[in-house]
Amino acid sequence: MKRDKAVVVFSGGQDSTTCLFWALERFETVYAVTFSYGQRHSQEVEVAKSIANDVGVEHHVLDMDLLNQLAPNALTRSDIEVTDGGEGELPSTFVPGRNLLFLTFATIFGQQRGAFDIITGVCETDYSGYPDCRDGFVKSLNVTLNLAIDNTFVIHTPLMWLDKEATWKLADDLGKLDYVRERTLTCYHGVQGDGCGECPACELRMQGLQKYLDHKGRDD
Amino acid sequence: MKRDKAVVVFSGGQDSTTCLFWALERFETVYAVTFSYGQRHSQEVEVAKSIANDVGVEHHVLDMDLLNQLAPNALTRSDIEVTDGGEGELPSTFVPGRNLLFLTFATIFGQQRGAFDIITGVCETDYSGYPDCRDGFVKSLNVTLNLAIDNTFVIHTPLMWLDKEATWKLADDLGKLDYVRERTLTCYHGVQGDGCGECPACELRMQGLQKYLDHKGRDD
Repeated sequence: MKRDKAVVVFSGGQDSTTCLFWALERFETVYAVTFSYGQRHSQEVEVAKSIANDVGVEHHVLDMDLLNQLAPNALTRSDIEVTDGGEGELPSTFVPGRNLLFLTFATIFGQQRGAFDIITGVCETDYSGYPDCRDGFVKSLNVTLNLAIDNTFVIHTPLMWLDKEATWKLADDLGKLDYVRERTLTCYHGVQGDGCGECPACELRMQGLQKYLDHKGRDD
Repeated sequence: MKRDKAVVVFSGGQDSTTCLFWALERFETVYAVTFSYGQRHSQEVEVAKSIANDVGVEHHVLDMDLLNQLAPNALTRSDIEVTDGGEGELPSTFVPGRNLLFLTFATIFGQQRGAFDIITGVCETDYSGYPDCRDGFVKSLNVTLNLAIDNTFVIHTPLMWLDKEATWKLADDLGKLDYVRERTLTCYHGVQGDGCGECPACELRMQGLQKYLDHKGRDD
């Protein structure tokens, strides 16, 4: 079995864009797959498209509106108040198992294309309440998928044990720090690049970058 | 954790209808979930609706059109001829991991409803080329789902080791042989009940029933 093709679960954020470059160093053909399910900012899908186009990888947007059928507010007939979720709390519109579904669909996509390596930017280090970002889950899913499809997929998680500083270092090692910094979208308010600077996603991203640049400056 | 609710993956066929009655004997509240994805006969969904209504269980039809985005003919730009698949061969429009997806969605649905027991009519005995009908897969998925969602779901497979004769016996033990025989849809040509009598699904179903009735007659 030739293993020269890979599928990257790709949102256009810092993490998955870094994973995209990581994959491009290792595989001849890379597919990027983005899941569209009414994101806070449909802009996310546009950013993903433009990066994929820029980098020259084949990009597929898979419509996951289905997920909205399973959101609690869709299922429970107005007996649950929709909240944003406080610090470290999952929002009430949250659909559990989202990463499980994304990885499963990416794998089925890969099977259809003869791409048996799946790359995802999930990370246990900045684990924020999502059990399906954890390493043990990903490994269990890997076994389950191979049993389900009778194949030998490998799920790669290059960021699993990295903190944000180390993820910036990885982008830099790949020669893509500036690109990732300028082109990706992490901000909750939909501001590309360094973002609004105030939302939790921007804070986490910027703190990591600052730490990395500080350490780098000292080491130079 | 109260375990009085269950979710049945329900197609309106002989197997899942038998599972529905099996579940109704064991759980206070049973939800039936049917996946709609351009079945050979959308009639399948109608039959499922009418049985669920008849039996008095809450029924949800989840739209899985998404699956069509992953069919080889949708992905590979006309370089694959669409075939029906011969005896024991999977059709070229086949999307791998279908049961994996159905069970995953049923579980997410159950999580949202507080129903932690999932019932499916998959069966290794008349295994017909689908790796995600096998017992080892279902058990691995059960572990993966519990890791993904941080809960203690149990996937029940009452038909896993039964042949068709034994499945008819189970329906009879549940007092539902006539109901299952008359109301369910298994036939490839969309004929409810005893079906067209000629397609492979009808043959398998009828042979099992005949065997069961013969043995029953002898034992009486």
